[in-house]
Amino acid sequence: MKSDLDNLMRSRNFNAILVFGNAENNPPMTYLTGGGHVTSATLVKKLDQDAVLFCGLMERDEAAKSGLKVRLYDEYPWQELLKEANGDNSLMAALRLRNILTDMGIQGRVGLYGHIELGGMFSTLGHLQKVMPSVELVGEARESSLFLYAMETKEDAEVAHIRNMGRITIEVVGLTAQYLTSRAVGADEVLLDEAGAPLKLGVVKGKINLWLAERNAVPSEGFIFSLGRDAGVPHSQGNPDDLMRLGQTIVFDIYPQEPGGGYFYDFTRTWSLGYATPQALKLYGQVHSCYDRLIENLFLNAPFKDSQVLTCEIFEADGHATPRTHKAPMQGYIHSIGHGVGVNIHERPWSGLTAAEDNLLKPGVVITIEPGLYYPEQGMGFRIEDTYWVNPNGKIELLAEYPYDFVLPMKNWKAS
Amino acid sequence: MKSDLDNLMRSRNFNAILVFGNAENNPPMTYLTGGGHVTSATLVKKLDQDAVLFCGLMERDEAAKSGLKVRLYDEYPWQELLKEANGDNSLMAALRLRNILTDMGIQGRVGLYGHIELGGMFSTLGHLQKVMPSVELVGEARESSLFLYAMETKEDAEVAHIRNMGRITIEVVGLTAQYLTSRAVGADEVLLDEAGAPLKLGVVKGKINLWLAERNAVPSEGFIFSLGRDAGVPHSQGNPDDLMRLGQTIVFDIYPQEPGGGYFYDFTRTWSLGYATPQALKLYGQVHSCYDRLIENLFLNAPFKDSQVLTCEIFEADGHATPRTHKAPMQGYIHSIGHGVGVNIHERPWSGLTAAEDNLLKPGVVITIEPGLYYPEQGMGFRIEDTYWVNPNGKIELLAEYPYDFVLPMKNWKAS
Repeated sequence: MKSDLDNLMRSRNFNAILVFGNAENNPPMTYLTGGGHVTSATLVKKLDQDAVLFCGLMERDEAAKSGLKVRLYDEYPWQELLKEANGDNSLMAALRLRNILTDMGIQGRVGLYGHIELGGMFSTLGHLQKVMPSVELVGEARESSLFLYAMETKEDAEVAHIRNMGRITIEVVGLTAQYLTSRAVGADEVLLDEAGAPLKLGVVKGKINLWLAERNAVPSEGFIFSLGRDAGVPHSQGNPDDLMRLGQTIVFDIYPQEPGGGYFYDFTRTWSLGYATPQALKLYGQVHSCYDRLIENLFLNAPFKDSQVLTCEIFEADGHATPRTHKAPMQGYIHSIGHGVGVNIHERPWSGLTAAEDNLLKPGVVITIEPGLYYPEQGMGFRIEDTYWVNPNGKIELLAEYPYDFVLPMKNWKAS
Repeated sequence: MKSDLDNLMRSRNFNAILVFGNAENNPPMTYLTGGGHVTSATLVKKLDQDAVLFCGLMERDEAAKSGLKVRLYDEYPWQELLKEANGDNSLMAALRLRNILTDMGIQGRVGLYGHIELGGMFSTLGHLQKVMPSVELVGEARESSLFLYAMETKEDAEVAHIRNMGRITIEVVGLTAQYLTSRAVGADEVLLDEAGAPLKLGVVKGKINLWLAERNAVPSEGFIFSLGRDAGVPHSQGNPDDLMRLGQTIVFDIYPQEPGGGYFYDFTRTWSLGYATPQALKLYGQVHSCYDRLIENLFLNAPFKDSQVLTCEIFEADGHATPRTHKAPMQGYIHSIGHGVGVNIHERPWSGLTAAEDNLLKPGVVITIEPGLYYPEQGMGFRIEDTYWVNPNGKIELLAEYPYDFVLPMKNWKAS
């Protein structure tokens, strides 16, 4: 939680942290500011003190909405700094940063964060290290960074945001199922659109985008709606020209976000329209049964990777390759069982076999559980994913309920 | 243009460039890959050779859509690298990068690009400098970077993308005008929604979002739809709870982008519904007249800042503060006259008074022209903005036409 930041800074021996970039679509900055149209800002937080947000004059009002203390870059007139820097913009930015840190009495170890354009900042920080040797600049790997630890446990107000995105997600998934199952079916078991033409996957994706927009949810990292062989490659988003057909697996993995880089939800269902092949029914059954066993075996404060180990055991018993049996499996069960969800679609806690022991199902975490099986050469893939919250009472709570039906009966078609 | 990259690399004495991060929403990477769901990729381009895109196994199919040569990180098994790195993830990433660069025969000066999370990359690059001293890592300030020079001049196919976003923009602006002018007007000159309740700005913004989504355009950096005092602060996006009223200035600055971080369009109109105050009419007239004079004075291969100088002359003659008369004016004309537009909403050429001499209106550039006047204390602001292309024949072409009316007559209201 945000209230953990000072302790996390202390544990890293940081005297201050700096977050660079826009207030929006920049996880650590959005997390601390709540977003807003503030660009190229610098957030400075000294240990045990409130954060200060530096921004340009024109964005003072937007910055003030963050509730943080706002100061203007204009306190450090760039014209003079540029002269001191002999016209070098990167050095100028470094001199301004040096002045800000000096005025705030910051020296020693300083952590660096922010989703930004690398080149200029790399140059600026190189200059800063030279012009301000009293500061030691420290970059942390994202996966183990202070922010991912703070973000790992959510306040109830944050969970309300995620739950709301979950509500929107299942509405949109329901509309998609309703649209697909209401279609007429033409030659070669191809679904037909309203005008009677073969229905393309791209058209369905367009509708999903629209249903999200109507609900003010943003597919900021896209979504996966993929068929057959593509469904067998976990991150293929689907080919817009594919035709929608009966009896092929559809993996629908949707992870909408609040506008401006807010909270995500993460959800997957696998469908087969009208009927399913015996092989698909068998594999879906294995995934669904694995999912059920995983949910029964989520325990408060357990290491998240216990779920990964259990998944491997289950799928190996069914005869599939897993990350335990193969280094980089191309088919079978080929990813990890879940991840934290917040203002990052993937964040702590991690569940991979090599995840650190401190990735626990502790109160406050919001996680996905997403077993899947992938057989691209057989033209099929399967995944079930839901988002769960370990609430402050230690109960592990599903944040949005949706049925697990695999075969969706078509309203206007029957197997002959 | 992309074909300039090798010469731009030579002029900087770069033996290679590295672009880090996702294929989407990452201007230099999106520019070279065309987007797609490829995350945490590394693009390596050696001087005078084709670029190679490194990605994870699961994203090989999405990466292949770029048309670039694709290689997998899995060629460098992370398990062994992590052992060599004693479990340090940042060092592991540095060792992998060292191996990639070594295998490709890269040493000497290497430029660094990509919109990424700073911390981990800062750490990785620090390690890389130590484990591979034969490489000199160079960050460029974004404003003067090789990519902003390459992107500055557009191929015709790129302009087609921008023109298409322009077509969508004016459709959405037209729908907005039509919606507002069709409203009934209630007490205190407040517009009423379909149900007869006072119309809030947030509702109008919601409709604009929907109209954009229907057209597959993304307000990735939001848009400005701001009233009265907020219209007088150039980057205020507007307060959703404000009521829509007659006779107040509305600044509508909309800059939609293709999904996944593609091309932008940039456009502004200022409106006053039903009627305008005499002061607003006078100031809008000055902005409109300034805009017309600027367009008459756009000349092939002229420095872009000539337009800024002319704008200052015009507005100063009307008695307004400008960036020439005040260091950081709080009212009057308080920004620069335009900027390039592409996969960045703001890119070369620059038009500020201090812009370098090489920011020229040369064939291939796509620019905005956007004079404005801002008087927040008087509760008003004004801006007119269009996007122009200097085509290969040297003609300066408006990319989307839309009327310049300031007072929009209400269909169901007349001044009494």
